[in-house]
Amino acid sequence: MKLYDYLPSGNSYKVRLMLSYLGINYDHVPLNIHKGETQSKDYKSKNPAGQIPLLELADGRLLAESNAILYFLAEGTPYWPLNSFDQAKVLQWMFFEQYKHEPAIAVARFIHIYAMETRANELVKLMPRGEAALAVMEAHLADNLWFVGSGPTIADIALYAYTHVAGDGGFNLSEYPNIMAWLDRFSDHPKHILITDLPMN
Amino acid sequence: MKLYDYLPSGNSYKVRLMLSYLGINYDHVPLNIHKGETQSKDYKSKNPAGQIPLLELADGRLLAESNAILYFLAEGTPYWPLNSFDQAKVLQWMFFEQYKHEPAIAVARFIHIYAMETRANELVKLMPRGEAALAVMEAHLADNLWFVGSGPTIADIALYAYTHVAGDGGFNLSEYPNIMAWLDRFSDHPKHILITDLPMN
Repeated sequence: MKLYDYLPSGNSYKVRLMLSYLGINYDHVPLNIHKGETQSKDYKSKNPAGQIPLLELADGRLLAESNAILYFLAEGTPYWPLNSFDQAKVLQWMFFEQYKHEPAIAVARFIHIYAMETRANELVKLMPRGEAALAVMEAHLADNLWFVGSGPTIADIALYAYTHVAGDGGFNLSEYPNIMAWLDRFSDHPKHILITDLPMN
Repeated sequence: MKLYDYLPSGNSYKVRLMLSYLGINYDHVPLNIHKGETQSKDYKSKNPAGQIPLLELADGRLLAESNAILYFLAEGTPYWPLNSFDQAKVLQWMFFEQYKHEPAIAVARFIHIYAMETRANELVKLMPRGEAALAVMEAHLADNLWFVGSGPTIADIALYAYTHVAGDGGFNLSEYPNIMAWLDRFSDHPKHILITDLPMN
Protein backbone atom coordinates (compact mmCIF):
# COMPACT_ATOMS: atom_id res chain seq x y z
CA MET A 1 0.00 0.00 0.00
CA LYS A 2 0.96 3.63 -0.46
CA LEU A 3 0.75 6.45 2.09
CA TYR A 4 0.55 10.05 0.88
CA ASP A 5 2.11 11.91 3.75
CA TYR A 6 3.71 15.02 5.19
CA LEU A 7 6.27 14.05 7.80
CA PRO A 8 5.60 16.74 10.47
CA SER A 9 1.84 16.01 10.37
CA GLY A 10 0.50 14.38 13.51
CA ASN A 11 -2.48 13.09 11.52
CA SER A 12 -0.11 11.24 9.19
CA TYR A 13 2.05 10.12 12.13
CA LYS A 14 -0.97 8.24 13.52
CA VAL A 15 -0.98 6.10 10.39
CA ARG A 16 2.81 5.62 10.40
CA LEU A 17 2.62 4.47 14.03
CA MET A 18 -0.15 1.96 13.25
CA LEU A 19 1.73 0.59 10.23
CA SER A 20 4.87 0.23 12.36
CA TYR A 21 3.02 -1.56 15.17
CA LEU A 22 1.51 -3.97 12.65
CA GLY A 23 4.78 -4.49 10.74
CA ILE A 24 3.20 -3.49 7.42
CA ASN A 25 5.54 -2.29 4.66
CA TYR A 26 4.35 0.55 2.48
CA ASP A 27 5.45 3.10 -0.08
CA HIS A 28 5.88 6.54 1.41
CA VAL A 29 4.89 9.44 -0.86
CA PRO A 30 5.90 12.73 0.74
CA LEU A 31 3.93 15.85 -0.22
CA ASN A 32 4.78 19.39 0.80
CA ILE A 33 1.60 21.03 2.13
CA HIS A 34 3.33 24.44 2.09
CA LYS A 35 3.95 24.20 -1.65
CA GLY A 36 0.31 23.40 -2.44
CA GLU A 37 1.07 19.79 -3.34
CA THR A 38 -2.15 18.61 -1.64
CA GLN A 39 -4.19 21.19 -3.56
CA SER A 40 -3.14 20.16 -7.08
CA LYS A 41 -5.83 18.97 -9.49
CA ASP A 42 -4.15 15.57 -9.67
CA TYR A 43 -4.05 15.09 -5.90
CA LYS A 44 -7.60 16.38 -5.40
CA SER A 45 -8.79 13.77 -7.88
CA LYS A 46 -7.53 11.27 -5.28
CA ASN A 47 -8.69 13.18 -2.20
CA PRO A 48 -11.24 15.93 -2.91
CA ALA A 49 -10.73 17.26 0.63
CA GLY A 50 -7.11 18.06 -0.35
CA GLN A 51 -5.57 16.63 2.81
CA ILE A 52 -2.98 14.14 3.93
CA PRO A 53 -2.81 11.38 5.05
CA LEU A 54 -4.31 9.36 2.22
CA LEU A 55 -3.97 5.59 1.95
CA GLU A 56 -3.95 3.94 -1.47
CA LEU A 57 -4.45 0.18 -1.50
CA ALA A 58 -2.72 -2.14 -3.98
CA ASP A 59 -5.95 -2.27 -6.03
CA GLY A 60 -6.13 1.53 -6.22
CA ARG A 61 -8.90 2.09 -3.67
CA LEU A 62 -8.38 5.28 -1.67
CA LEU A 63 -9.09 6.05 1.97
CA ALA A 64 -8.78 9.47 3.61
CA GLU A 65 -9.17 10.81 7.17
CA SER A 66 -6.48 9.63 9.57
CA ASN A 67 -8.89 8.08 12.05
CA ALA A 68 -10.81 6.17 9.38
CA ILE A 69 -7.48 4.81 8.11
CA LEU A 70 -6.60 3.74 11.66
CA TYR A 71 -9.91 1.86 11.88
CA PHE A 72 -9.28 0.09 8.57
CA LEU A 73 -5.78 -1.01 9.59
CA ALA A 74 -6.68 -1.95 13.18
CA GLU A 75 -9.75 -4.10 12.58
CA GLY A 76 -8.96 -7.66 13.62
CA THR A 77 -5.94 -6.58 15.69
CA PRO A 78 -5.64 -5.85 19.46
CA TYR A 79 -5.86 -2.13 18.67
CA TRP A 80 -9.61 -2.41 17.95
CA PRO A 81 -11.62 -3.98 20.79
CA LEU A 82 -13.92 -6.94 20.32
CA ASN A 83 -17.17 -5.79 21.92
CA SER A 84 -19.30 -3.16 20.29
CA PHE A 85 -19.65 -0.84 23.30
CA ASP A 86 -15.87 -0.68 23.69
CA GLN A 87 -15.57 -0.10 19.95
CA ALA A 88 -18.01 2.81 20.25
CA LYS A 89 -15.99 4.23 23.17
CA VAL A 90 -12.85 4.10 20.99
CA LEU A 91 -14.72 6.06 18.33
CA GLN A 92 -16.03 8.47 20.99
CA TRP A 93 -12.44 9.40 21.86
CA MET A 94 -11.43 9.58 18.21
CA PHE A 95 -14.28 11.99 17.41
CA PHE A 96 -13.31 13.98 20.51
CA GLU A 97 -9.78 14.09 19.11
CA GLN A 98 -10.88 15.48 15.75
CA TYR A 99 -13.47 17.90 17.14
CA LYS A 100 -12.07 19.25 20.42
CA HIS A 101 -8.37 18.36 20.51
CA GLU A 102 -6.78 18.57 17.04
CA PRO A 103 -8.46 21.85 15.94
CA ALA A 104 -6.96 23.56 19.01
CA ILE A 105 -3.70 21.75 19.79
CA ALA A 106 -2.53 20.91 16.25
CA VAL A 107 -3.50 24.33 14.94
CA ALA A 108 -1.69 26.11 17.80
CA ARG A 109 1.39 24.02 16.97
CA PHE A 110 1.09 24.88 13.27
CA ILE A 111 0.83 28.61 14.07
CA HIS A 112 3.82 28.51 16.45
CA ILE A 113 6.02 26.74 13.89
CA TYR A 114 4.90 28.33 10.62
CA ALA A 115 2.59 31.30 11.06
CA MET A 116 3.36 33.43 14.12
CA GLU A 117 3.63 36.57 12.00
CA THR A 118 0.20 36.23 10.43
CA ARG A 119 -1.99 34.10 12.71
CA ALA A 120 -0.78 34.63 16.31
CA ASN A 121 -4.08 36.40 17.09
CA GLU A 122 -5.89 33.05 16.82
CA LEU A 123 -4.02 31.70 19.85
CA VAL A 124 -6.15 33.61 22.34
CA LYS A 125 -9.09 31.34 21.47
CA LEU A 126 -7.09 28.19 20.71
CA MET A 127 -5.15 27.97 23.97
CA PRO A 128 -8.16 27.67 26.34
CA ARG A 129 -9.81 25.20 23.93
CA GLY A 130 -6.66 23.08 23.95
CA GLU A 131 -6.36 23.31 27.74
CA ALA A 132 -9.97 22.14 28.06
CA ALA A 133 -9.28 19.11 25.84
CA LEU A 134 -6.15 18.25 27.84
CA ALA A 135 -8.14 18.56 31.08
CA VAL A 136 -10.70 16.01 29.81
CA MET A 137 -7.86 13.60 29.00
CA GLU A 138 -6.11 14.26 32.33
CA ALA A 139 -9.29 13.47 34.29
CA HIS A 140 -9.87 10.25 32.36
CA LEU A 141 -6.28 9.12 32.89
CA ALA A 142 -6.56 9.66 36.65
CA ASP A 143 -8.56 6.42 36.78
CA ASN A 144 -7.44 4.63 33.62
CA LEU A 145 -4.13 3.52 32.14
CA TRP A 146 -5.51 3.68 28.58
CA PHE A 147 -8.46 5.40 26.90
CA VAL A 148 -10.49 2.20 26.44
CA GLY A 149 -9.83 -1.20 28.02
CA SER A 150 -6.59 -2.65 29.34
CA GLY A 151 -4.16 -1.80 26.53
CA PRO A 152 -3.54 0.76 23.81
CA THR A 153 -6.14 1.05 21.05
CA ILE A 154 -6.42 3.35 18.06
CA ALA A 155 -7.97 5.89 20.47
CA ASP A 156 -4.58 6.13 22.20
CA ILE A 157 -2.75 6.34 18.86
CA ALA A 158 -5.07 9.12 17.65
CA LEU A 159 -4.68 11.12 20.88
CA TYR A 160 -0.94 10.54 21.22
CA ALA A 161 -0.08 12.06 17.85
CA TYR A 162 -0.67 15.72 18.69
CA THR A 163 -0.58 15.47 22.50
CA HIS A 164 3.07 14.46 22.65
CA VAL A 165 4.04 17.56 20.63
CA ALA A 166 1.57 19.92 22.36
CA GLY A 167 4.58 21.75 23.81
CA ASP A 168 5.35 22.96 20.26
CA GLY A 169 2.04 24.84 20.42
CA GLY A 170 2.74 26.50 23.74
CA PHE A 171 0.97 24.02 26.03
CA ASN A 172 2.75 23.09 29.23
CA LEU A 173 2.35 19.34 29.58
CA SER A 174 4.07 19.28 32.97
CA GLU A 175 0.76 20.59 34.34
CA TYR A 176 -0.81 17.27 33.34
CA PRO A 177 1.00 14.47 35.23
CA ASN A 178 -1.46 11.75 34.22
CA ILE A 179 -1.01 12.65 30.56
CA MET A 180 2.79 12.69 31.01
CA ALA A 181 2.68 9.16 32.50
CA TRP A 182 0.42 7.93 29.69
CA LEU A 183 2.77 9.40 27.04
CA ASP A 184 5.61 7.41 28.64
CA ARG A 185 3.54 4.22 28.75
CA PHE A 186 2.52 4.68 25.13
CA SER A 187 6.00 5.33 23.75
CA ASP A 188 7.33 2.26 25.58
CA HIS A 189 5.90 0.07 22.76
CA PRO A 190 8.65 -2.06 21.14
CA LYS A 191 7.69 -0.83 17.68
CA HIS A 192 7.33 2.83 18.62
CA ILE A 193 8.63 5.35 16.09
CA LEU A 194 9.17 9.09 16.38
CA ILE A 195 7.10 11.62 14.44
CA THR A 196 10.27 12.53 12.52
CA ASP A 197 11.25 8.94 11.66
CA LEU A 198 11.09 8.01 8.02
CA PRO A 199 9.55 4.61 7.30
CA MET A 200 12.20 1.90 7.35
CA ASN A 201 11.57 0.02 4.13
CA MET B 1 -32.11 3.75 27.06
CA LYS B 2 -32.00 7.46 27.78
CA LEU B 3 -30.98 10.27 25.41
CA TYR B 4 -29.75 13.58 26.86
CA ASP B 5 -30.70 16.01 24.16
CA TYR B 6 -31.32 19.54 22.94
CA LEU B 7 -34.04 19.52 20.31
CA PRO B 8 -32.60 22.08 17.81
CA SER B 9 -29.21 20.28 17.82
CA GLY B 10 -28.35 18.55 14.56
CA ASN B 11 -25.89 16.33 16.42
CA SER B 12 -28.71 15.09 18.64
CA TYR B 13 -31.07 14.84 15.66
CA LYS B 14 -28.71 12.26 14.11
CA VAL B 15 -29.32 10.00 17.09
CA ARG B 16 -33.10 10.63 17.08
CA LEU B 17 -33.21 9.73 13.37
CA MET B 18 -31.28 6.49 13.96
CA LEU B 19 -33.50 5.51 16.90
CA SER B 20 -36.59 6.21 14.78
CA TYR B 21 -35.29 4.15 11.84
CA LEU B 22 -34.56 1.24 14.17
CA GLY B 23 -37.85 1.54 16.08
CA ILE B 24 -36.11 1.84 19.44
CA ASN B 25 -38.02 3.44 22.29
CA TYR B 26 -36.09 5.69 24.66
CA ASP B 27 -36.44 8.26 27.39
CA HIS B 28 -35.87 11.78 26.15
CA VAL B 29 -34.11 14.09 28.61
CA PRO B 30 -34.13 17.66 27.26
CA LEU B 31 -31.36 20.01 28.40
CA ASN B 32 -31.14 23.71 27.62
CA ILE B 33 -27.63 24.46 26.39
CA HIS B 34 -28.30 28.21 26.67
CA LYS B 35 -28.98 27.91 30.40
CA GLY B 36 -25.75 26.03 31.09
CA GLU B 37 -27.53 22.75 31.73
CA THR B 38 -24.76 20.81 29.93
CA GLN B 39 -22.07 22.57 31.99
CA SER B 40 -23.42 21.64 35.45
CA LYS B 41 -21.20 19.58 37.74
CA ASP B 42 -23.79 16.82 37.73
CA TYR B 43 -23.98 16.61 33.93
CA LYS B 44 -20.21 16.86 33.47
CA SER B 45 -19.83 13.86 35.76
CA LYS B 46 -21.75 12.01 33.02
CA ASN B 47 -20.05 13.71 30.06
CA PRO B 48 -16.83 15.57 30.92
CA ALA B 49 -16.90 17.23 27.49
CA GLY B 50 -20.15 18.98 28.55
CA GLN B 51 -22.01 18.24 25.33
CA ILE B 52 -25.19 16.69 24.06
CA PRO B 53 -26.12 14.17 22.76
CA LEU B 54 -25.30 11.61 25.43
CA LEU B 55 -26.71 8.09 25.45
CA GLU B 56 -27.24 6.28 28.75
CA LEU B 57 -27.82 2.56 28.52
CA ALA B 58 -30.15 0.65 30.85
CA ASP B 59 -27.13 -0.55 32.85
CA GLY B 60 -25.87 3.02 33.31
CA ARG B 61 -23.03 2.95 30.77
CA LEU B 62 -22.59 6.28 28.99
CA LEU B 63 -21.68 7.07 25.40
CA ALA B 64 -20.96 10.55 23.99
CA GLU B 65 -20.16 11.94 20.52
CA SER B 66 -23.06 11.75 18.09
CA ASN B 67 -21.17 9.75 15.48
CA ALA B 68 -19.90 7.20 18.01
CA ILE B 69 -23.51 6.77 19.21
CA LEU B 70 -24.61 6.25 15.59
CA TYR B 71 -21.98 3.51 15.22
CA PHE B 72 -23.12 1.77 18.41
CA LEU B 73 -26.77 1.80 17.35
CA ALA B 74 -26.15 0.88 13.69
CA GLU B 75 -23.81 -2.07 14.11
CA GLY B 76 -25.58 -5.20 12.84
CA THR B 77 -28.16 -3.16 10.87
CA PRO B 78 -28.19 -2.13 7.19
CA TYR B 79 -26.93 1.32 8.21
CA TRP B 80 -23.43 -0.08 8.88
CA PRO B 81 -21.92 -1.95 5.91
CA LEU B 82 -20.55 -5.47 6.16
CA ASN B 83 -17.10 -5.20 4.62
CA SER B 84 -14.32 -3.40 6.39
CA PHE B 85 -13.30 -1.07 3.54
CA ASP B 86 -16.88 0.20 3.22
CA GLN B 87 -17.02 0.58 6.99
CA ALA B 88 -13.85 2.68 6.85
CA LYS B 89 -15.36 4.80 4.06
CA VAL B 90 -18.42 5.43 6.26
CA LEU B 91 -16.08 6.58 9.02
CA GLN B 92 -14.13 8.70 6.53
CA TRP B 93 -17.30 10.67 5.74
CA MET B 94 -18.24 10.88 9.42
CA PHE B 95 -14.82 12.32 10.35
CA PHE B 96 -15.15 14.71 7.40
CA GLU B 97 -18.53 15.73 8.85
CA GLN B 98 -17.11 16.52 12.29
CA TYR B 99 -13.92 18.19 11.04
CA LYS B 100 -14.86 20.09 7.87
CA HIS B 101 -18.65 20.32 7.78
CA GLU B 102 -20.15 20.73 11.25
CA PRO B 103 -17.61 23.31 12.55
CA ALA B 104 -18.55 25.58 9.61
CA ILE B 105 -22.18 24.83 8.76
CA ALA B 106 -23.56 24.12 12.24
CA VAL B 107 -21.67 27.02 13.77
CA ALA B 108 -22.87 29.44 11.05
CA ARG B 109 -26.43 28.27 11.78
CA PHE B 110 -25.92 28.76 15.52
CA ILE B 111 -24.60 32.29 14.98
CA HIS B 112 -27.47 33.21 12.63
CA ILE B 113 -30.10 31.99 15.08
CA TYR B 114 -28.61 32.96 18.44
CA ALA B 115 -25.55 35.16 18.19
CA MET B 116 -25.63 37.62 15.28
CA GLU B 117 -25.02 40.55 17.63
CA THR B 118 -21.84 39.14 19.13
CA ARG B 119 -20.34 36.63 16.68
CA ALA B 120 -21.30 37.75 13.14
CA ASN B 121 -17.62 38.54 12.45
CA GLU B 122 -16.85 34.80 12.48
CA LEU B 123 -19.01 34.26 9.39
CA VAL B 124 -16.39 35.65 7.00
CA LYS B 125 -14.24 32.57 7.69
CA LEU B 126 -17.06 30.08 8.26
CA MET B 127 -18.94 30.65 4.98
CA PRO B 128 -16.12 29.64 2.58
CA ARG B 129 -15.28 26.67 4.80
CA GLY B 130 -18.90 25.54 4.66
CA GLU B 131 -19.09 26.11 0.90
CA ALA B 132 -15.95 23.97 0.47
CA ALA B 133 -17.51 21.12 2.48
CA LEU B 134 -20.73 21.34 0.46
CA ALA B 135 -18.69 21.29 -2.78
CA VAL B 136 -17.00 18.03 -1.72
CA MET B 137 -20.42 16.48 -1.03
CA GLU B 138 -21.87 17.84 -4.31
CA ALA B 139 -19.03 16.32 -6.35
CA HIS B 140 -19.41 12.93 -4.64
CA LEU B 141 -23.16 12.92 -5.20
CA ALA B 142 -22.70 13.60 -8.92
CA ASP B 143 -21.72 9.95 -9.30
CA ASN B 144 -23.33 8.34 -6.25
CA LEU B 145 -26.84 8.13 -4.82
CA TRP B 146 -25.49 7.64 -1.27
CA PHE B 147 -22.20 8.32 0.48
CA VAL B 148 -21.17 4.66 0.71
CA GLY B 149 -22.76 1.71 -1.07
CA SER B 150 -26.25 1.34 -2.45
CA GLY B 151 -28.37 2.65 0.40
CA PRO B 152 -28.27 5.09 3.30
CA THR B 153 -25.72 4.44 6.06
CA ILE B 154 -24.83 6.35 9.19
CA ALA B 155 -22.58 8.50 6.94
CA ASP B 156 -25.76 9.83 5.27
CA ILE B 157 -27.48 10.31 8.63
CA ALA B 158 -24.48 12.22 10.00
CA LEU B 159 -24.26 14.47 6.93
CA TYR B 160 -28.00 15.01 6.58
CA ALA B 161 -28.42 16.47 10.07
CA TYR B 162 -26.80 19.86 9.48
CA THR B 163 -26.90 19.91 5.66
CA HIS B 164 -30.71 20.00 5.48
CA VAL B 165 -30.76 23.10 7.71
CA ALA B 166 -27.70 24.77 6.12
CA GLY B 167 -30.05 27.48 4.84
CA ASP B 168 -30.47 28.61 8.46
CA GLY B 169 -26.77 29.47 8.40
CA GLY B 170 -26.95 31.50 5.20
CA PHE B 171 -25.92 28.78 2.73
CA ASN B 172 -27.87 28.61 -0.52
CA LEU B 173 -28.56 24.92 -1.11
CA SER B 174 -30.19 25.59 -4.50
CA GLU B 175 -26.62 25.99 -5.80
CA TYR B 176 -26.06 22.30 -5.04
CA PRO B 177 -28.57 20.28 -7.10
CA ASN B 178 -27.01 16.89 -6.29
CA ILE B 179 -27.23 17.64 -2.59
CA MET B 180 -30.85 18.78 -3.00
CA ALA B 181 -31.75 15.50 -4.73
CA TRP B 182 -29.95 13.48 -2.03
CA LEU B 183 -31.79 15.37 0.74
CA ASP B 184 -35.07 14.40 -0.97
CA ARG B 185 -34.01 10.76 -1.30
CA PHE B 186 -32.93 10.66 2.32
CA SER B 187 -36.10 12.19 3.76
CA ASP B 188 -38.23 9.75 1.76
CA HIS B 189 -37.51 7.05 4.40
CA PRO B 190 -40.80 5.70 5.90
CA LYS B 191 -39.56 6.37 9.43
CA HIS B 192 -38.14 9.82 8.73
CA ILE B 193 -38.70 12.43 11.44
CA LEU B 194 -38.14 16.19 11.42
CA ILE B 195 -35.47 17.88 13.52
CA THR B 196 -38.26 19.51 15.52
CA ASP B 197 -40.22 16.31 16.14
CA LEU B 198 -40.37 15.14 19.72
CA PRO B 199 -39.88 11.38 20.19
CA MET B 200 -43.20 9.58 20.01
CA ASN B 201 -43.18 7.43 23.12
